[in-house]
Amino acid sequence: MDKLIITAALVGAEVTREDTPHLPVTPEEIAEQAAEACEAGASIAHIHVRDKEGRPSQSRELYRETIEAIQKRCGMIIQVSTGGAVGMTPEDRLQPVTLSPEMATLTTGTVNFGNGVFHNPPGEIRQFADSMQQHGVRPEFEIFDTGMISTAIALVKEGLVTGHLHFDFVMGMPGGIPADAKHLLLLVDQLPAGATWTVAGIGRNQLPMAALGVTLGGHVRVGLEDNLYYRKGELATNSQLVARVKRLAAELERPVATPDEARRILALPN
Amino acid sequence: MDKLIITAALVGAEVTREDTPHLPVTPEEIAEQAAEACEAGASIAHIHVRDKEGRPSQSRELYRETIEAIQKRCGMIIQVSTGGAVGMTPEDRLQPVTLSPEMATLTTGTVNFGNGVFHNPPGEIRQFADSMQQHGVRPEFEIFDTGMISTAIALVKEGLVTGHLHFDFVMGMPGGIPADAKHLLLLVDQLPAGATWTVAGIGRNQLPMAALGVTLGGHVRVGLEDNLYYRKGELATNSQLVARVKRLAAELERPVATPDEARRILALPN
Amino acid sequence: MDKLIITAALVGAEVTREDTPHLPVTPEEIAEQAAEACEAGASIAHIHVRDKEGRPSQSRELYRETIEAIQKRCGMIIQVSTGGAVGMTPEDRLQPVTLSPEMATLTTGTVNFGNGVFHNPPGEIRQFADSMQQHGVRPEFEIFDTGMISTAIALVKEGLVTGHLHFDFVMGMPGGIPADAKHLLLLVDQLPAGATWTVAGIGRNQLPMAALGVTLGGHVRVGLEDNLYYRKGELATNSQLVARVKRLAAELERPVATPDEARRILALPN
Amino acid sequence: MDKLIITAALVGAEVTREDTPHLPVTPEEIAEQAAEACEAGASIAHIHVRDKEGRPSQSRELYRETIEAIQKRCGMIIQVSTGGAVGMTPEDRLQPVTLSPEMATLTTGTVNFGNGVFHNPPGEIRQFADSMQQHGVRPEFEIFDTGMISTAIALVKEGLVTGHLHFDFVMGMPGGIPADAKHLLLLVDQLPAGATWTVAGIGRNQLPMAALGVTLGGHVRVGLEDNLYYRKGELATNSQLVARVKRLAAELERPVATPDEARRILALPN
Ligand SMILES: [Mg+2]
Ligand SMILES: [Mg+2]
Ligand SMILES: [Zn+2]
Ligand SMILES: [Zn+2]
Ligand SMILES: [Zn+2]
Ligand SMILES: [Zn+2]
Repeated sequence: MDKLIITAALVGAEVTREDTPHLPVTPEEIAEQAAEACEAGASIAHIHVRDKEGRPSQSRELYRETIEAIQKRCGMIIQVSTGGAVGMTPEDRLQPVTLSPEMATLTTGTVNFGNGVFHNPPGEIRQFADSMQQHGVRPEFEIFDTGMISTAIALVKEGLVTGHLHFDFVMGMPGGIPADAKHLLLLVDQLPAGATWTVAGIGRNQLPMAALGVTLGGHVRVGLEDNLYYRKGELATNSQLVARVKRLAAELERPVATPDEARRILALPN
Repeated sequence: MDKLIITAALVGAEVTREDTPHLPVTPEEIAEQAAEACEAGASIAHIHVRDKEGRPSQSRELYRETIEAIQKRCGMIIQVSTGGAVGMTPEDRLQPVTLSPEMATLTTGTVNFGNGVFHNPPGEIRQFADSMQQHGVRPEFEIFDTGMISTAIALVKEGLVTGHLHFDFVMGMPGGIPADAKHLLLLVDQLPAGATWTVAGIGRNQLPMAALGVTLGGHVRVGLEDNLYYRKGELATNSQLVARVKRLAAELERPVATPDEARRILALPN
Repeated sequence: MDKLIITAALVGAEVTREDTPHLPVTPEEIAEQAAEACEAGASIAHIHVRDKEGRPSQSRELYRETIEAIQKRCGMIIQVSTGGAVGMTPEDRLQPVTLSPEMATLTTGTVNFGNGVFHNPPGEIRQFADSMQQHGVRPEFEIFDTGMISTAIALVKEGLVTGHLHFDFVMGMPGGIPADAKHLLLLVDQLPAGATWTVAGIGRNQLPMAALGVTLGGHVRVGLEDNLYYRKGELATNSQLVARVKRLAAELERPVATPDEARRILALPN
Repeated sequence: MDKLIITAALVGAEVTREDTPHLPVTPEEIAEQAAEACEAGASIAHIHVRDKEGRPSQSRELYRETIEAIQKRCGMIIQVSTGGAVGMTPEDRLQPVTLSPEMATLTTGTVNFGNGVFHNPPGEIRQFADSMQQHGVRPEFEIFDTGMISTAIALVKEGLVTGHLHFDFVMGMPGGIPADAKHLLLLVDQLPAGATWTVAGIGRNQLPMAALGVTLGGHVRVGLEDNLYYRKGELATNSQLVARVKRLAAELERPVATPDEARRILALPN
């Protein structure tokens, strides 16, 4: 079993400072928390950025600032989000990809998401994959339900994604696949040989899905984007959530990967 | 095991006369094929209507004509589609529901569908459920992936759907859940106690999924909406597809339900 | 999907003429019914023999007579049983293997069976595998529960079984694995790449498990050894049970294999 | 989710002092380690006894001594084994049941076990259940493969087992069900409503199966009977193995049950 890659989903596009005082919002705050998460055991920083008012943004400039601020502090793999927010065009959402970060998310389907729709029509998915290919960015497939895996595999067949395949299963989002072991095993079963996977449980599913990820040989994503609480009624910090997964993995005899070890597992250029 | 309910999905919104000469398009043609399908063993007519140019329509008047033409010929349960087509408003799509047919489809999520998006945001789903409740129409939940079941169950908890629950699993649509036994068993596993289910395999999945539906105690949907071929290279008629499922079920010692027997299984008013 | 191999389990060791008048008992009767089963679509004759009193026997001479009588009539693959009966030694049970038939059963574990125990301790399993290897007999692994697959694979690793691997899942025997789709899928999941499988449902499980075998790309065993009835209350003949599976497979567009086609699928010398 | 019941399988019938110096052998040693395990978080002591030479024994007197020595030290639930060893009669194996301990194991099938056979024919299973019923002993069903669950349920239908049902899944024993999440989920799926379950992974499966037991809402058995090592190359003590599961459960926000809490979960008389 490979060492465990922990992804820290530090900020997201939905959570607000009203939800939790621990949310990082500015490039400096995000970078500070990335460094703490790295210290705590994370090797990938999954990042979104926010504008001055704290609203979700896909600004190239804000991503650039944030990435530089992280890189000043630690050697984590940087994974930018292309999820964006309601009303954004594909070009808006693709801005951070043009910075050629090591990784970017690629959601391979459309799904209801909270009260809205996370809109990724077939044509735009291909536009996103193409942009990542052109900028030398490794996609992480964001899988919200079973049908998205087939679409990811279709991209590979179409030549729009090449190299090592890595999937992130986002489980327990209302509208998406339920977060439990049966659904997780089915997703894992569908993966092409050699692919790696991470599981991200939403809300109170974060902890049990992390345990399953560690136990079943997957990798784990935690952080305030997906879950606010350390335990019922007790708000968490990003680094606390990461540290707990590291301790859990240690008990289960699975050491965490450093950023460079994670690069080797994901076959990213070192 | 209950008797087998066969749903004939006669026309759909996508298939054209160019695809197959066997497609019924006018109200009379649809009614004629419904009657043939009933004769062949189907007890539910799942219908869409087309305008004069053969384009998908949700016209109340066309649905009314079609329903009357069917009812003149046979006693099938009539299930109208609320799927509609790109560019239609929820109100457009809901027109046939206002005719108070026995059943209507209710898709409880958004999913990529061919090259487009089948758009059912959370708010509209509730609008559709509410409309069906007001017009005394029994919804059939159209499930394209696992997350849609949780949403269906949420509607029940919210009081927007009451009474017997019936699900239709549409499997093998690009963008939706793959069509195989593992995925089917997982869907069945998630259903509330007492619920019934139908499986509709798309394209070449229609026949094997029908066999699984018969064997596993579910019900089966076939028809030109989902699949054009009787076998590789040989175009089918609706009644041929229905007749094959009936023969298959007979070999498996599972008789088909008459329309009134289907009403009892689905707890519809007789 | 390969053509369908139907195995006719004509006689077994437990059923009696009191249970059903259709049971073949003498070498001539068994051969006659084998030929009829072949005519009806079977390509493997799975045989046991009985002594003059109709009791189960592993007599080399009776097997020799039966095999010759079958070969006079048709070209079926002959698969002898090594199951034997209570009180027999391994050497007793192995007698028909010394005739070098094309196939023999190899049960890779011990399990309760009706009111007794079907006794196959680890050492004897290896003795059986070794004997088959020495006589050039292809084993069919008889799997009564999940643990027997691992043992079969262990034999391969130990070099005691070589070449193409074929498994028979016996499902629904009290004491053994239950007969349903979930358990079947789990068994199939465990098979080594390239292996083929047959499913044999016991009693009223025979028909639904046959349907699953046909649909899921496996092969099917039917016959009076496993099930006496054509339908509830109506005793079957071996050829009726075979003919029904052939018709079912035809409806599902899966033609049955001739004996020589079955030899190719199983990589048996022609 | 109920609090976690940890069972300490302290000694077993197979492990020797040559295998590990940490094995308790005498009644006093077993009791001492039971008390340590209780201190570390276990609420059930699963016990076997050994004779003066360290060989497995079912001596009523040795069980009596051991139980008294445990009860002097702590309030754990005592669960005696009825597994016995090769050559013992059912009456030999049932001796500790006649002491009316709170629980005893009841293996509901026969299975290869290492190089031998763990022999539990249908008639003896019923004899064991009957004896437990007469002595007011709660059986824990020991499940080594899927077929044993159906037999356990048959005992309930026959009235030989009444009250709350508790199962122990022994996974990863050569000859028995493999130790992985898929097989575990299938076992859990088969349980009657309201039943509770424990998982015991053999050898290096002990730790990952414990993690699954904690995560999926089951209970966990660990101890030297099933596994000698704390980690690769490092021999464990019973209390170390228990303490690790307790820490793991704490990280997963699942507190361990005290013996009295375990009694309530298992509906044992307090
Ligand atoms: Mg979806
Ligand atoms: Mg077994
Ligand atoms: Zn994100
Ligand atoms: Zn439709
Ligand atoms: Zn046989
Ligand atoms: Zn034990």
